[in-house]
Amino acid sequence: MAGKKRETVIVFGGGLVGSLLALFLGRRGYRVDVYEKRPDIRYTTIEEARSINLALSDRGWNALRALGLEDEVKDVGLPMYARAMHDIEGNLTYQPYGKEGQAIYSVTRFSLNKRLVSIAAQMPNVYYHFNARINSVNLKRKEAHVTNLLNTEDEYNAGADYIFGADGAFSNIRSSMQRSDRFDYQQFYIEHGYKEFHLNPNEANDWALENDKLHIWPRGTFMMIALPNPDKSFTCTLFFPFNGPLSFESIKTKEQVSEFFQTYFKDLVGIMPDHADQYFRNPTSSLVTVKCFPWVMNNVALIGDAAHAIVPFFGQGMNCGFEDCFTLDQLVEQEGTLEAALPKYQLSRKKSADAIADLALANFIEMRDSVGNPRFLLRKKIEAGFHRLFPEQWIPMYTQVTFSNVPYEDALASGRLQDHYLSQIMEVPGIDKAELTDAYLTQLWSDFVAEGRKL
Amino acid sequence: MAGKKRETVIVFGGGLVGSLLALFLGRRGYRVDVYEKRPDIRYTTIEEARSINLALSDRGWNALRALGLEDEVKDVGLPMYARAMHDIEGNLTYQPYGKEGQAIYSVTRFSLNKRLVSIAAQMPNVYYHFNARINSVNLKRKEAHVTNLLNTEDEYNAGADYIFGADGAFSNIRSSMQRSDRFDYQQFYIEHGYKEFHLNPNEANDWALENDKLHIWPRGTFMMIALPNPDKSFTCTLFFPFNGPLSFESIKTKEQVSEFFQTYFKDLVGIMPDHADQYFRNPTSSLVTVKCFPWVMNNVALIGDAAHAIVPFFGQGMNCGFEDCFTLDQLVEQEGTLEAALPKYQLSRKKSADAIADLALANFIEMRDSVGNPRFLLRKKIEAGFHRLFPEQWIPMYTQVTFSNVPYEDALASGRLQDHYLSQIMEVPGIDKAELTDAYLTQLWSDFVAEGRKL
Repeated sequence: MAGKKRETVIVFGGGLVGSLLALFLGRRGYRVDVYEKRPDIRYTTIEEARSINLALSDRGWNALRALGLEDEVKDVGLPMYARAMHDIEGNLTYQPYGKEGQAIYSVTRFSLNKRLVSIAAQMPNVYYHFNARINSVNLKRKEAHVTNLLNTEDEYNAGADYIFGADGAFSNIRSSMQRSDRFDYQQFYIEHGYKEFHLNPNEANDWALENDKLHIWPRGTFMMIALPNPDKSFTCTLFFPFNGPLSFESIKTKEQVSEFFQTYFKDLVGIMPDHADQYFRNPTSSLVTVKCFPWVMNNVALIGDAAHAIVPFFGQGMNCGFEDCFTLDQLVEQEGTLEAALPKYQLSRKKSADAIADLALANFIEMRDSVGNPRFLLRKKIEAGFHRLFPEQWIPMYTQVTFSNVPYEDALASGRLQDHYLSQIMEVPGIDKAELTDAYLTQLWSDFVAEGRKL
Repeated sequence: MAGKKRETVIVFGGGLVGSLLALFLGRRGYRVDVYEKRPDIRYTTIEEARSINLALSDRGWNALRALGLEDEVKDVGLPMYARAMHDIEGNLTYQPYGKEGQAIYSVTRFSLNKRLVSIAAQMPNVYYHFNARINSVNLKRKEAHVTNLLNTEDEYNAGADYIFGADGAFSNIRSSMQRSDRFDYQQFYIEHGYKEFHLNPNEANDWALENDKLHIWPRGTFMMIALPNPDKSFTCTLFFPFNGPLSFESIKTKEQVSEFFQTYFKDLVGIMPDHADQYFRNPTSSLVTVKCFPWVMNNVALIGDAAHAIVPFFGQGMNCGFEDCFTLDQLVEQEGTLEAALPKYQLSRKKSADAIADLALANFIEMRDSVGNPRFLLRKKIEAGFHRLFPEQWIPMYTQVTFSNVPYEDALASGRLQDHYLSQIMEVPGIDKAELTDAYLTQLWSDFVAEGRKL
């Protein structure tokens, strides 16, 4: 941008996606002002923040790597190589996430966010404004109306060449856009809410469960999961219906909570003695999916959850938001300006975001129900065998989403085709008892997949 | 409500649905305060208002009849007994809406609204507040925040036992509800917008087209329609894509407008000489569908377009809103109180509103495309024959929606079944040339419908 006035960008939201975006755009030479309604996270302790775990996988790492930050954030994550399923008696079965060595990383939102803010704020052309809430945006004038939350009398307008809403699922920037003509918008909640439980280290001050697995207690209509933290605790999350015969609504007393844990999470009762207290102390939150279009109006743009909030069951919310930033940066490189990149950004990412939103909803059923089913595990074994024997021709959909940068919509499409083949294979007489030798798998492959044969 | 404090209701929106609701609830003894942001319509002339035509049909009449208002509004409508299709050369074909004597009524929104306000405002317990905009609602406190638009410094809170949002497709009450947890919401626009044209009376001061028909110029991807007004003019509406090779975007000069009319609406050119001026003078508007749930939160409720904005292609927007009021009133009768009626109201009407929203979107394709197709007209003739011969067993879906009070969702379900049978019948060899005698129709009936036979 030599010889030209430096263009300015306002990013609303200094969370994970907003900070990553500031890093990418700062590196491109824009003046970036980040407005964040919360206090400066660099002077906040983890006790003051809500602990939420995220699963960082390849798309997220890819964006961090592009900024040279892979090593800088590596130590905030713990690798998880497999799902560990806890049945109702406490017995464990395992299902690897990928090939040997492939892992998703349990990351504490707070730690990663703090790291990204610290790095971004060091750039000479990136400025953070904390305790500053953007209330609305004037799309025509490209001006944001800001309230200083330390002194709410202090309100002002801030203008820029570009404004980004990285302000999450309940984005104020998006609310301003929603009032425009011809803005398509959808928000819907699933019937389940969630509640977090903290699982302390055991008496030997070690993790109370295997720390290199993502733990699941699949119970059909609901489930518990647990992700390890670096401090040797786990964050457990119960996904449970709001209403109905067995639900947040139906469990009202400490006795009912204890009975519920005793029945469904027997192996947690001993290691989490305060589960009933936590049930009443910790909030119950809802799970929303948001879809909208357009994402870009007059150089005001949405990114991350503000553009596409999804349910957490594929562990892709942050990864998708990071990929938004990475793709946008690639397009700026390709098109020369942010202005030229934005229309391409929304077209490319809208398709991907819609696909991962649908995949995330579908994966809830897999996690809470299918993973507890022996036929499902057999299916996954056949799939893994195909992937091993025909690595170029069969890449499991889960692998495409989690361990590659294939567009989500392409992963969704091949997943549907794979489902079609696997459903046919699962009808083969005796498949339940068959030994999955290479020869047998190769025969299945040539009968069903290579030929595209219909039963 | 003898011996009890009179319960209070705030209705936001003094339009058609808000005023009808005030009439129903006023009659039940509630104190009703209607807040309307526009000036008092009783002192407004039609020139100051935008002229919009509506089609009043049985569901609307049914609600008016329940209030004893059938005769009071009869003179604001003109009956239309058939669709008159104008082909590209100006040739006409006709398709009756129902049986002989069945008609839908072209009504000027302004006249009907004025009539309803005049009647409602005469009730001793109904109070209208004009130039009063409700900005938001505090759902917990059941309090509306109101601005007096004649003096915008004058803002106040108004509380009531019940608050209704009858404030249309862009409802402020709904916006307040949308910010609540677990509120499902969707708004989406179709690719077409609309523009109105005024067709003056002819030189003999008579209607320039037959005044007892709804006129359609079906052109595949777009269409014009015309509805008669009591002053012997017509209101024509062009439904046309916003973008694309032939669209509002592509037609930019007066010459292009004239060429467009000359090509597609030849028979309008002579009788509407100022069509090009009107094209540039009159606004282009968009068409939104809104779906949401819940409609009721803590005795704050949505009704009419605020709960379920639909596209206008089935002519059911107002009729559906009037049926909302009628159903709610019936439920108050049945349940004893408005509080007990509201949960049943939302469950019953949500299903119906979703069904008519989908039917209205589908009917656009019928109107703009199918009605110009001889095979579609044949299909309609076979259907009319079945209805004549087996009047209890076959009631066309259009008739169920327009000339009955069958729930919309039931009409949708039988329409799907009818489509299934008719699609099979249309594949009978020689059906295009067959004479539709009673004997032949009876044979078709027994072969395809009575047996539920599959081809």
